[in-house]
This record gives sequence, structure tokens and C-alpha cells, in this order.
Amino acid sequence: MRLIRKSIVPSVALLAAFPGLAVAQEVSAADAMFTVNNTWMMVATFLVFIMHLGFATLESGLTQSKNTVNILFKNMGIIAIGLLTYALLGFNLMYPGEFSIGGIFGFAGFGVGTDPEGLTSAYNPGYTYWTDFLFQGMFAATAATIVSGAVAERVKLGSFLVFSTVYVALVYPFLGSWKWGGGWLDAMGFYDFAGSTLVHSVGGWAALAGVIFLGPRLGKYVNGEIRPILGHNLPLAVIGMFLLWLGWFGFNGGSVLSADPGLVSFVLVTTSMAAAAGIIGAMLTTWIIHKHPDASMVLNGALAGLVGITAGADVVSVLSSIIIGLIAGVIVVFSVEIIDRAKLDDPVGAISVHLTCGIWGTLAVGLFSADFSIVTQLIGVLAYGAVAFPAASVIFLTLKATMGLRVSDTVERRGLDLSEHNMEAYPDYTIFTAR
Amino acid sequence: MRLIRKSIVPSVALLAAFPGLAVAQEVSAADAMFTVNNTWMMVATFLVFIMHLGFATLESGLTQSKNTVNILFKNMGIIAIGLLTYALLGFNLMYPGEFSIGGIFGFAGFGVGTDPEGLTSAYNPGYTYWTDFLFQGMFAATAATIVSGAVAERVKLGSFLVFSTVYVALVYPFLGSWKWGGGWLDAMGFYDFAGSTLVHSVGGWAALAGVIFLGPRLGKYVNGEIRPILGHNLPLAVIGMFLLWLGWFGFNGGSVLSADPGLVSFVLVTTSMAAAAGIIGAMLTTWIIHKHPDASMVLNGALAGLVGITAGADVVSVLSSIIIGLIAGVIVVFSVEIIDRAKLDDPVGAISVHLTCGIWGTLAVGLFSADFSIVTQLIGVLAYGAVAFPAASVIFLTLKATMGLRVSDTVERRGLDLSEHNMEAYPDYTIFTAR
Amino acid sequence: MRLIRKSIVPSVALLAAFPGLAVAQEVSAADAMFTVNNTWMMVATFLVFIMHLGFATLESGLTQSKNTVNILFKNMGIIAIGLLTYALLGFNLMYPGEFSIGGIFGFAGFGVGTDPEGLTSAYNPGYTYWTDFLFQGMFAATAATIVSGAVAERVKLGSFLVFSTVYVALVYPFLGSWKWGGGWLDAMGFYDFAGSTLVHSVGGWAALAGVIFLGPRLGKYVNGEIRPILGHNLPLAVIGMFLLWLGWFGFNGGSVLSADPGLVSFVLVTTSMAAAAGIIGAMLTTWIIHKHPDASMVLNGALAGLVGITAGADVVSVLSSIIIGLIAGVIVVFSVEIIDRAKLDDPVGAISVHLTCGIWGTLAVGLFSADFSIVTQLIGVLAYGAVAFPAASVIFLTLKATMGLRVSDTVERRGLDLSEHNMEAYPDYTIFTAR
Repeated sequence: MRLIRKSIVPSVALLAAFPGLAVAQEVSAADAMFTVNNTWMMVATFLVFIMHLGFATLESGLTQSKNTVNILFKNMGIIAIGLLTYALLGFNLMYPGEFSIGGIFGFAGFGVGTDPEGLTSAYNPGYTYWTDFLFQGMFAATAATIVSGAVAERVKLGSFLVFSTVYVALVYPFLGSWKWGGGWLDAMGFYDFAGSTLVHSVGGWAALAGVIFLGPRLGKYVNGEIRPILGHNLPLAVIGMFLLWLGWFGFNGGSVLSADPGLVSFVLVTTSMAAAAGIIGAMLTTWIIHKHPDASMVLNGALAGLVGITAGADVVSVLSSIIIGLIAGVIVVFSVEIIDRAKLDDPVGAISVHLTCGIWGTLAVGLFSADFSIVTQLIGVLAYGAVAFPAASVIFLTLKATMGLRVSDTVERRGLDLSEHNMEAYPDYTIFTAR
Repeated sequence: MRLIRKSIVPSVALLAAFPGLAVAQEVSAADAMFTVNNTWMMVATFLVFIMHLGFATLESGLTQSKNTVNILFKNMGIIAIGLLTYALLGFNLMYPGEFSIGGIFGFAGFGVGTDPEGLTSAYNPGYTYWTDFLFQGMFAATAATIVSGAVAERVKLGSFLVFSTVYVALVYPFLGSWKWGGGWLDAMGFYDFAGSTLVHSVGGWAALAGVIFLGPRLGKYVNGEIRPILGHNLPLAVIGMFLLWLGWFGFNGGSVLSADPGLVSFVLVTTSMAAAAGIIGAMLTTWIIHKHPDASMVLNGALAGLVGITAGADVVSVLSSIIIGLIAGVIVVFSVEIIDRAKLDDPVGAISVHLTCGIWGTLAVGLFSADFSIVTQLIGVLAYGAVAFPAASVIFLTLKATMGLRVSDTVERRGLDLSEHNMEAYPDYTIFTAR
Repeated sequence: MRLIRKSIVPSVALLAAFPGLAVAQEVSAADAMFTVNNTWMMVATFLVFIMHLGFATLESGLTQSKNTVNILFKNMGIIAIGLLTYALLGFNLMYPGEFSIGGIFGFAGFGVGTDPEGLTSAYNPGYTYWTDFLFQGMFAATAATIVSGAVAERVKLGSFLVFSTVYVALVYPFLGSWKWGGGWLDAMGFYDFAGSTLVHSVGGWAALAGVIFLGPRLGKYVNGEIRPILGHNLPLAVIGMFLLWLGWFGFNGGSVLSADPGLVSFVLVTTSMAAAAGIIGAMLTTWIIHKHPDASMVLNGALAGLVGITAGADVVSVLSSIIIGLIAGVIVVFSVEIIDRAKLDDPVGAISVHLTCGIWGTLAVGLFSADFSIVTQLIGVLAYGAVAFPAASVIFLTLKATMGLRVSDTVERRGLDLSEHNMEAYPDYTIFTAR
């Protein structure tokens, strides 16, 4: 911040400080358009960032209070690890190109692009190198966050953090390059606008692998019975849902990669309609089946609608977006039930929301848009599963054999907060420590 | 998201993907201005969206923990119902025009405007059709949310959702058309910039009707005494206040309907000054009268200031905005007291904040701006009351006669969460279930 | 909001309403650039605003539940007092110039700039007078908020509010003028981009003074032992951390004072990298030293990284920003320990985050950028300490001698909520009232 106020005639110092504004008459329309595109992409970046708070509150709200510190800790760790590894490795792995030196370091060893002038003019016609990195880095980190909820309440902290690092730094960018990096699926005509498959299913496959190799929480499946383990704080979970919806405006709206008025605002409408319809779908389904409208299913319904529309938000009609969201809201309820009956213990429903509805959304592009083939979409879905699930499994099994994957029964019963962090989330509530 | 990184020379595919940027030299200043206006309106839309989370946390914080799931559920339901009904009906009812086919369907049967090109160029000089719909839809849904807090802790879930659907789909757009649709009050010179009357009073009148026809909560008025029923979570309520203030930057700032630098930033200043003064007004009033500065009154004071400035945020001076907010902060304290003494049980003070201060704000335009007549403002206030209150009453009474409006005494005592949703907001807290 | 929809040909009324858009063909590129710059600065203002909610939740989460109403109340009071006093006094004290009449009133007696036309065209080439005021006012209020956490759980409400008023209205703008007002430190070549010293250390020095003159909380230091007094709600604190990080995008990104694409996005990257590295720094430090990764230290690590990068976010490389953040994350852990051993009782670690890391960040500019001298940076650090600490001390001591600074032991034991506000934050939890 520099002295800038109250000079009616801009001083020389001022002009030097703002090259873009230097002589107002010389600003070009292209400069202004570049600036607004970049501003929009920065706003979208903020929105994707806030999804990490959304995941943190959603996951902690839907799990027990004795594991709340642990969940929150994991979510703070993931955003840090995600951004740093993406800077070091992921960015260039995902989008190989001429800025890469040796093809490894994200910022090409941090030697490239540090001159703001160079990158603003020469990078691309949309926005700057830095905006691109930060937007993509926030995206990358969400893939690991998806896993966090599914493996909650029994995974070892250290092992989870190592898993996230490897998955975000290597697996996610490698898989992303197939489509967004211009790879073989892109060439085939596969379509995934903002990541129903590339982000959500990729996270969801890892969540499934984690749940399988960890096994269910103690007391969840006893003598063939399914015993619900309730989340401890619904307001936190609802805060999470609203923040995730908010964040999705940037996740989908930013995936237009410019501030193109018609395209971005259209995507915001389909995104919102699908979320709204997902709420209605889950509400009606639980009201009919369980006789009670289920609040935690309704918030998962909103997220299901959002995941479902993510692949085709820019290519389906508004009416289609409503149908896609409505179906996602129905699917998520049954998926949660089926996965639970299969004794796959997913405390927050992450597999159903991100994997099941990620697959649904990707296929829906083929169903609701004449421009894309359901067969190609299915090939894409299967190809991602065929690599993401084994890759996640290999990492999890390697960790299991080395660091160990699951905490001891004593630690699990006592809660990860006291054991792993020597801390409670709500120490004033004496009732808690007694449980 | 498509391959867009690291090409110094834009490829043909890239140019095809971004018509607006296609050849940078050919971008016009008008294109850039349209894009920035649209970007601003999208940001304003996000801010109004986040008000729904603000209402959800405010209302749940100010009510009892045994009804928290229910309140949160209602707020998730309202945003879904609000957006979907506004798409189906409300949008075109409120702003009748040439896009309407048959004058009923919001998107004219979803057949109009699906071509992004067409609507961006031809729609209006400010922003796109889609942005307009989403901004207005988020607005519409707030009118129902206002009611939610006033009828909390005893209204039947199903009846409330039906009420919201009808009120948002039919009553709100019909009443809105009188002014924002260019109707008779607009022709008379009535002024309501962003909805002190059109949104807040319209919601407030329905809240008043709901409170009257529902009756007070059990145990609230016993043997002529007023017994306070305390909210369960002040941090949630304060989160709500701050998010609502944040949202108001979009509610008022977006109501300029362009990114006009002077006008929008001026509106943000008057909005903030009124909110700040509302805090001071309520703080001093309760400190003097009750000897203790009342935290829940102070947060209602901020909201009172915000509602109060909403009608005239663009036409009163900064000094006037401070006075309007300060008076709103004082008024809201007395209004809460008077309404309580009248045995109208409004758990969160919604009638005082939205109706009382909505009226105050609308009249204040006539008092603090020479361009508007206090008489015309009063006519507008009375006209809205004369239709909104009876309309809401008819819907509530119809529901009372059919579905029933109020839960049974047993359900109310036990809490709506267990009875209506078979779920608790904080199941870990064993102390709760015992109450 | 006016009738604006569905007219393909703009009406005369419409053109009158939007001078900037009036005849689309006549919009200049400079107009569009001005509009996007102003839009960005408004977004930055919203982000800084939301930091106040971040502080409110962070501070209440890290303190006891019996003082939660009080903390939340203070944070609502500060934003109100901060904005109003900045409007009345601070704005013109900090940036003296030709708009000032008598050099006292911020809006020059509210007589200046009320004509939107005048200020948009003549004010400065970046954005409007109103945007400038609101952005700077939100900034100013943060300096007082920093103090709030350090003096929590024993300061008298009235005295704290008077302190905040004087500090924000007089001390902060006076000290700010040394650099951002073009004063002597600016002339010397001292650099503080967004306020590691001007905001964070200035707040931190006052926090230190407050902690010294108040003394520690009862039961904190007993018989030479340090007894931890635990915060009551970690999710609230984590919400605070994420909201503060989000807000910092505006705090640092907005301090570019334009939407300059390269510079703003570069600043966002250094800001995020430092926050991420701060998390890793604090995580590793506590994991190694305490054997347990400490969640509250990790969130302070993120804030430490953010404070650390604030002085040089636009002039250090990305790699340097990671190192600066990492070191800040380590420093904050040791600083908290040292301050605690010195029997300075800072419940939330505000002195370590804002003062210690504010100093570190300011010196780091001299270490990591060849353009600035570490000696000049040190002179700046010392100069601010030499005035801020005594100034805060004088105000605190004056209050101690007049209104009193600290609540009675009875009030402190019972909690400030019941005593000062006659209210509890969580009245449903009967377990609380028994404590």
C-alpha cells in the first residue's frame, strides 16, 4: 500500500506505481478485458479456497466430538500440503509445457515468472500465471480433502498426511493430464467440464480404497447389525454444505477460465439449479422411505447435485440441470444405504457424494447433451477408476506395511483427539471426557 | 476447464473457446464494461446467497437446541424451493416482458435464452439473463427465510414449506412488480432502492401473520408473565449477523444493477455506516435501559440498521445513513419489547428487524431525501401491508384448516428435531436428551 | 433496484440511470479499467470485513465458554466503533490532503464527495473515494481487534471499548501516516507493503501493553507453575483461521490498490504460500518438541505466516515467501512459550502472531529483497514500538486510574458473560452454569 489518496492530478510516482493505469487515455480495451478476466479468476480462487473450510466443518460436524480436533487438523494440513506440493511438482506434471524446465518443478524451480511484467503480457490471453497456479492448486487440494471424511475416526494422522501428499503431488496431476492436460481422453472426445470425474471421482476412488483397507469403525457393524454412529454437530455440517455450494460457484464458474458473461453466468445457474434439485430429491426420498425428512441426507443431496452437474454444467440445459440434480439427490440416498450394507464404513457419505454422483454426472453429459457420447463418457469413467483405485490402494497398502494405517482400538475408543493431539475440541464440556 | 495454459501464442482452439477474447485487439471497451458489470453482479449474487447461511445460523443460534435440526432443515429447504419456484414461476411474474410466453414460466418454459450468445448481446446493457435470474432468485428466497425465524419452534415442517413455496412463487413476485416491475407504485414515485419494503416488510408481514395464527410457544406467557426462552448458541447467531452484513453488500450493492463505481461504492458506505450505527444504537439503548449491554440485541441492531438503510441507500447522505441506522438500532429494542408485551411470540425478533425497521427505512427515504415524498412512502408502506398481511393470513389459515399449522404439545415439548426429523443436532451431549 | 429487465433497446430512463453505460459505443477503455479496479477493491473490502468475523470466532474459540458472549460483543463493538471513528476522524488524520477541511473530519464534515459524479472522475486513477474510505476503515478496525484476544477474559468491557475508540481514531492513523501517509519513514525507504508493522505490530504492541497492565488471569500462574486455561471450541477457532486467511487475500491483494493482474495475483500466491508454510512450520515444531502435533499452534502457524508475509508480499520471490512463512510458523511456537514463561498471559497468542511475526516479516523484507535495507527496516520496527507501546500504555493506565481496567475476581471467576451481559453463550448446557 502506498500513498495514493487525494491527488486529483496523478503524480509521477503514482504513474510509476500503476503501469496499467499510467496514462488513462492509453489503456486499451484488451488490457481492461484481461484485468476483469483475471479478477474473476481470483474471485473463483477464493471461492474454491473456502471449500476447504466447508469440508472441515462438514466432516467434523458429521463425526464424533472425540475426533473433531483430528478432522480439523487434517483439513488444515491438506490445504498446506496441497498448495506446497502443487507448487513443487503438481502444477507442471498436470500441464506440461514450455515453461517447464526439466518437466518436474511446478514453478520450474521457482526461477520462472517472477517478473510480473513478463507473465502478465506473455502468458495467455485469459489471466496470469500466478492466478492459474493458485486456482489449480486450490482445486488439487480438494481431491485429498474428499478422502479425509471417508477415512475419519480411525486413520493414523501421519499416514493420512503422507497419503495426501503423494496423491495430490503425483496421482491427481497425472490423471488430470489425460483430459485437462490435453491427453488421450481429451483427444477421444471425453468431456468433464469442471471435474465430476477428474476431481470428485478421483477423490472418491481413493476414499473407497481407504475405507476398504482401513475397515469399519469399532462398533459400527456388530453381529450383522448396522449401528449408526452419529455426527456431533449438525450446525457445523450445514455451515459446511452452504460454504461448499458457495465454493462451487468458483469451482464451476472458474472452470470457464475467463469471465465470459454468458458462459459463466449460465454455469452458475445450472450449478445452483442442480444443488436445489438435489436438496428436493434427497428430501422427498427420505421423507417417503424413512417417513422423516433427513437433514444430513438433505445436505448430502445438495452436494450430490453439485457433484452431478460439475461434468456438464456448461453443456446441458437448465431443465436438464434440474433433472440431473434431482436424480443425484435420489441416488445419494440409496448409495449411502448400499455402501453401508456392504459394510463399507464411510462416516460422512463421501464415496456416495463424490464417487457415485461423480460417475452419474459424467455419464449424464452423454445423456443430456447431444454433443457427447455416453460410450466415451463411460470409457473415461472406467479408465479413471482403473487407475485411481489401484493407485490409491498401492499407496494405502504401502503405508499399512510401513507406518501403519489404523490407530489402535484403545486410541479409537478414547478418541483421536486426546491420543493423537493431546487435546479436546470442547474441553469445557465435562460430559465429553466421561464418554 | 480446457487446456489453456502455457501457450504464448493463442491456438485456434483457444480462440474458438473464448469468443470474447478471440483476437485481443478486437475487444471493445463496451465488451469489457459488460464483462465487469456482469462479474460484479455475479459477486453480488454470491453475497446474497450467503445470506441464507446467515439466516440459518442466526435463527438456529437464537432458538433452543432441541429445534436446531428443524431450523437448519427449513433454511436448506427454502433456498431450494425458492430458486426452483422462481425459475418456474416467479421470475416472469415479477418482471413481465417480451421473453414471457404465456406470462407464466420464469424461463418461458425453459425454451428461451439457452443460447448464451443470444442473451449476452441482446438482453440488456448491464449483464446477462442468467445473472439476472440468479440474483433475483436469491433475493426472492430471502423473503421466505425472514418468516422462518418468527414461526420457529412450533410450526409444522410441511406446512411451513408449502407456505414458503406459495409466498415466494406468487405473493412476493406479485407485490414486487408494483415497484420493480414498473407497476403503479413506481409510477406514483414511491422509492424502495433494495427492498426495505419489497423484501423485508413483505417477509415481516408474513412473519406477523404466522406468529398470530400459530400462537406463542408453550411456557412463554404464563399467568401474565413473560418468560424468556433463551437461544442455545450465541456464536452461531453472531456468525449469522456477520454473514448477513456481508451478504448485504451484495443485496444493496447489487441493487445498483451495474458495477457503476461511484454509485455502488457509495451504497456500500451508507450500508456499512447504518449497520455500525445500528450496533451503537442498540448497545446504548440496552446499556441504559437494562443496565447490561445485550449481545443479542446488538446483533439485531446491526440487522435493524441494515434493513433501515436498504430503501434509501443510494439517495441519502452518509451522515443521514448514520442517523437512520442509529434510530433503527434504538427502534428495534423497543419494538421487540412491545411485540413481546403484546404476547406475540417472535423467537428471533424477525418482525422487529424486518417489518418495523423496514417501515422505518422506507419512511426515512421521505425524511432524509428531498427527492421523495414521505406521503408517497407512507402510501407504499400501507399498500404493501394491506395486501401482504391478508395474503399471508389466507395461506396460513388455509394450511391451518387442512394440513394443520402447529405441532402437538408433546412434539413441541420434546423438540421438533426428534419428532419431525428423528435426529438431534448435538447427539454427543447426553445432557440434552435428558432435558 | 429499478426496472431494468427485458428491454432489448435501452430506454431513456435506463440510460439516465447508468451514465457509465449510457451509450455503449461511447464507453472508453479507461472507464472499463476504472470500473474493474474499483470492483476489485470493493471485493478486497468485503474480504477484510470478513476478517472481523474471523477474529470473533478465533478469539471466542480459544477462550472459555463463560466469556464467549463478552468476546463476541467486543468484536461486534469494534467493527462499529472502528468504522464510525474512522469516518469522523481517522481517515483524514491518516491521509491528510486537499479534501480535508480543518484537517480533522474524515469526510471533511461529511460535506465532501457526496456527489458521486465528482468523486468518480476526479478522485484518483484507481477507484472511488468511497471505496477508499471503506477499505481503509475495515483495515483500521483490525488493529483494535488484535488487542481484543490478548486482553480477553478479564478486561472491563467499557474500558476496552474506550481504548479501541482512542487507539483506532488517533494512534493508528497517526502511526500509519509515517509510511502510508507519505511521512518520514516513507522518505527513508522503509517498506511495509500491507502492514506487518503498520497494522499487526501496532495492534501487537497495544496487546502487549494491555497484557502487562491487566496482569494474568486468575489461576494461570500458580506457585511458579504455568497452568493452561483451555479454549472451549476448536471448530470456532478453525473457522476463524480459514476466514482470516480468506480475508488476507483482500488485506494483501487489496493493498496493491488496483486490480493490476500480475501484481495482485503474485501477492495472492506469496500470501498463500506463506500461510501454507506457516502451518507446516508450526506442525513440525510442535510434533518434534511436544511429540503431538498441536492444532491450536497450527492455526496460529497459518496466521503467523500470513502476518510474516504481509510486509513484503509484493517484493519477495515465491521461494522466499515459503521460507518466510516456514520460519514464522516456527517462531510463533517459541514466542508463545517464551511469553508464557515471562508470565505474560495472552489467551489466544495474539502478541506472538501479530507482534513477533509482524517484526519478523518487516525485517524479512530487508533479508529477502535486495531493494530494501535491513537497517532501515529495523529502524522502522523500533520507531513503531517506541511510540505504539507507550501510547497504548498511557491509554491503558489512564483507564486504570479512572474507569478501572480489570473486572473483580468474583466477576472473573463467574465469567464475564453473566456479570457484564447477564447472559450465557450456551444456556442449554446446564453443565456450564455449574462450573
